[in-house]
Amino acid sequence: MGNFNFRVVFRIISNNLFILSAALLISGAVAILAGEQVKPFLETAVLAFAVGLMLYYAARSKADHHPLSRKEAYLTVTLTWLIMSLTGSLPYLISGAIPSVTDAIFESVSGFTTTGSSILTDIEVLPKSILFWRSLTHWIGGIGIIVLVIIIMPALKIGGYHLFSMESSLQEKISPRIKTVGIYLLYIYISLTVAEIILLLAGGMNIFESTCHAFGTVATGGFSPRNDSIAGYSPYIQYVITIFMLLAGVNFIIPYYLVKKDFLKIRQNEEFRFYLVVVFIIGIFISLSLMKDMGKSAETAFREGFFQVVSIITCTGFATADYLQWPVYAWLIIFFCMFLGGSTGSTAGGIKMVRHLIVMKNVRIIFRRLSSPHAMIPIRLNKKMLNEEANNSVLTFVTLYLMVFITGSVILVLLGLDGATSASSVATCMAGIGPGIGSVGPVSNFAHLPQAAKIILSVLMITGRLEIYTVLILFSPSYWKK
Amino acid sequence: MGNFNFRVVFRIISNNLFILSAALLISGAVAILAGEQVKPFLETAVLAFAVGLMLYYAARSKADHHPLSRKEAYLTVTLTWLIMSLTGSLPYLISGAIPSVTDAIFESVSGFTTTGSSILTDIEVLPKSILFWRSLTHWIGGIGIIVLVIIIMPALKIGGYHLFSMESSLQEKISPRIKTVGIYLLYIYISLTVAEIILLLAGGMNIFESTCHAFGTVATGGFSPRNDSIAGYSPYIQYVITIFMLLAGVNFIIPYYLVKKDFLKIRQNEEFRFYLVVVFIIGIFISLSLMKDMGKSAETAFREGFFQVVSIITCTGFATADYLQWPVYAWLIIFFCMFLGGSTGSTAGGIKMVRHLIVMKNVRIIFRRLSSPHAMIPIRLNKKMLNEEANNSVLTFVTLYLMVFITGSVILVLLGLDGATSASSVATCMAGIGPGIGSVGPVSNFAHLPQAAKIILSVLMITGRLEIYTVLILFSPSYWKK
Ligand SMILES: [K+]
Ligand SMILES: [K+]
Repeated sequence: MGNFNFRVVFRIISNNLFILSAALLISGAVAILAGEQVKPFLETAVLAFAVGLMLYYAARSKADHHPLSRKEAYLTVTLTWLIMSLTGSLPYLISGAIPSVTDAIFESVSGFTTTGSSILTDIEVLPKSILFWRSLTHWIGGIGIIVLVIIIMPALKIGGYHLFSMESSLQEKISPRIKTVGIYLLYIYISLTVAEIILLLAGGMNIFESTCHAFGTVATGGFSPRNDSIAGYSPYIQYVITIFMLLAGVNFIIPYYLVKKDFLKIRQNEEFRFYLVVVFIIGIFISLSLMKDMGKSAETAFREGFFQVVSIITCTGFATADYLQWPVYAWLIIFFCMFLGGSTGSTAGGIKMVRHLIVMKNVRIIFRRLSSPHAMIPIRLNKKMLNEEANNSVLTFVTLYLMVFITGSVILVLLGLDGATSASSVATCMAGIGPGIGSVGPVSNFAHLPQAAKIILSVLMITGRLEIYTVLILFSPSYWKK
Repeated sequence: MGNFNFRVVFRIISNNLFILSAALLISGAVAILAGEQVKPFLETAVLAFAVGLMLYYAARSKADHHPLSRKEAYLTVTLTWLIMSLTGSLPYLISGAIPSVTDAIFESVSGFTTTGSSILTDIEVLPKSILFWRSLTHWIGGIGIIVLVIIIMPALKIGGYHLFSMESSLQEKISPRIKTVGIYLLYIYISLTVAEIILLLAGGMNIFESTCHAFGTVATGGFSPRNDSIAGYSPYIQYVITIFMLLAGVNFIIPYYLVKKDFLKIRQNEEFRFYLVVVFIIGIFISLSLMKDMGKSAETAFREGFFQVVSIITCTGFATADYLQWPVYAWLIIFFCMFLGGSTGSTAGGIKMVRHLIVMKNVRIIFRRLSSPHAMIPIRLNKKMLNEEANNSVLTFVTLYLMVFITGSVILVLLGLDGATSASSVATCMAGIGPGIGSVGPVSNFAHLPQAAKIILSVLMITGRLEIYTVLILFSPSYWKK
């Protein structure tokens, strides 16, 4: 631990706490506008600010501006999500909206990890400011993930991210140029949010719900201020949200290239194509099955099918239909989709498209090597060679992910949950989706789960959100030695 | 398909059919001794011999003795297990022991793949000769696997086998020296069988049951001629079988080295050590839990715990206790063990110890690279570098294995089975274990499953047994082109 500099860690966390208190103050403003109590937000904001200030001064005392090392980065990232989630649960507790500590933490973790699984049985009875805060945690979590996955992880070479998310010139250090990219991404994120709010307002949704839903969409979060999620809105609204979910599941580097008019890079991006093709095929299949087996009209089947498929694949979790009422094979496909995940460099969670692509490339190469074992067949992604380290990292990731999934499911079965609920709640929480199957379907919630299950799922949400390695490394002995 | 030589394929299959008819004649002899009908075996033997002869002459017509190519080998291996299983189901059908075609095929596939899952509800009512045949299919399947995994697959460089199962000098071609090794392995296999028969006879088991159980143990098959498997026998018998299951789960190259007095190679074999350590730790844990939570005496707990743990880890599937009566956490550990598998180069199935070792080494390296990303840390196995190709092959294998497991489980759920039964029957059939959990536990059987489930499980038994790649490649377009 000799070369471990806690000051850098503190400085970053203090910055994040300042951002958090600003967000809390905004929610406080919403409370004033809605004539609700400001106390929960004000008290939490003061606490967050005070702790932030303390950490800031602790970090400044012997100010050495050395850059963040890898080890420090892992701790910072995990601590950030943990501290944000714990602090963010206070408004729920202070306002009495969620009386149980476990529940409040679950809801807050679900917010900041952009999961959207909820323990609330009746959402609409809660104060508007609390619901605003709940959606805002998604939005903050989403921007955090964009920054983490597009800027921090590639720079730290975590999980092979530097190889498929950014140009190589940007990979070396968190340079001024990367900061420029960061600001671009922030613009894109805000533009998407604003555009969606405007389009929702145009469809007759009020400003409060438009904002909450836009936060939930762009962050692929899935919290809705309405009990029936998006089901009660007009087809127009549902189409708008489908399109924005689809956009939110795209690597944010794609709109960046679009702005830069670098169309070649977009055409070469295999994950982008793969993502669109997968969504299209599964969407069409489900739509046809809803027409055929449930007798829905073409438009309804198309709208309902694509909404649900896009919502699950992009790990958003909004719903316009209870897919558990669909034919069994249709909702089993939805369960499968929980293992897909959107694109890297988006706010979507899960295994993600590019990793599936790489696994498929590996399988194909093994098959080709089986026939001609002396052929050297390199794995290429986006016309570039994928090196051994990145490839192993991806394969190990998928293996670990599936092992954590099986282990988590078994533990929940052990806690007395049925198989479908166990497997799907682990799958949905690890991938940051929201609803599952069984007793945690889209019209149900996580309230009835035992406390231990809620804690385990909270841990899995953070572990999944931070791409597993980032959290697991903190438990590896080699991390803490020297 | 231009360079595809069906003649070589035919020649090998015809040889296998000759072996099969010999085995059928032996079972016929058992029928004569037991005063049972010989017809089922005689008729099948004649058929197998006739088809074998036909193929032999078809293959001989323009005899070109060119060696087996890779493509031909895959087809041969899969066809061999398929044809053996289909032919082997005839005695069940002709004798009327198993009237349903699907059931007879399931039982036969389960035999030749050394799985040991059974559709029989009452085993003891069947003719002795049929039960002998049933156990003999295990024994034939077991020797087939040893030859496949230690000799054929390394020579064909399938699944990275050439890197961890044999010395490099033996890897190039199926050379005369490899044939010598093959004969050694056959000796070891037969010696183990004979030794177990003698020790079981010494414990008072009759010659018929001793032979059947020895076949089932050495092949890690698990079919027993008794309804309650090994539960009704004396502790001595149970200990003998535990030890022989443990031996059968060891890479057969270890006794080969032992005979050659190459102790260094044994000491360096990481999989061997890992296997023993894993069995020991899980066995002790389960034994303690049986003492503590079920109030069993130390000896009973130790015997029962180790028997079940060794039986599942080595993929044998014999039982002396119904683990579903154990505390939930204990049988969930048993479910986990279904994903372990014994050693490579043994008759055990599943993912296997060495692959888990390699996954763990990859995880460790990723963690170490996270801290010091510029370090080149090679993966070593048995003091040798594991090359990229073999490493990728192992990682992809585990990923594919888990994906096939999840897909299979979902399909069985789709067919109306409950979660525990679905997941565990897929896990147990893919790994060639035998019993599962839920409604296919150690005191139950597979009779009640829908026909479609039995067919899917039969396919999974063969796919799992032949290490997935061997079967899947037949469905890859690149296999059939050119
Ligand atoms: K979500
Ligand atoms: K078995």
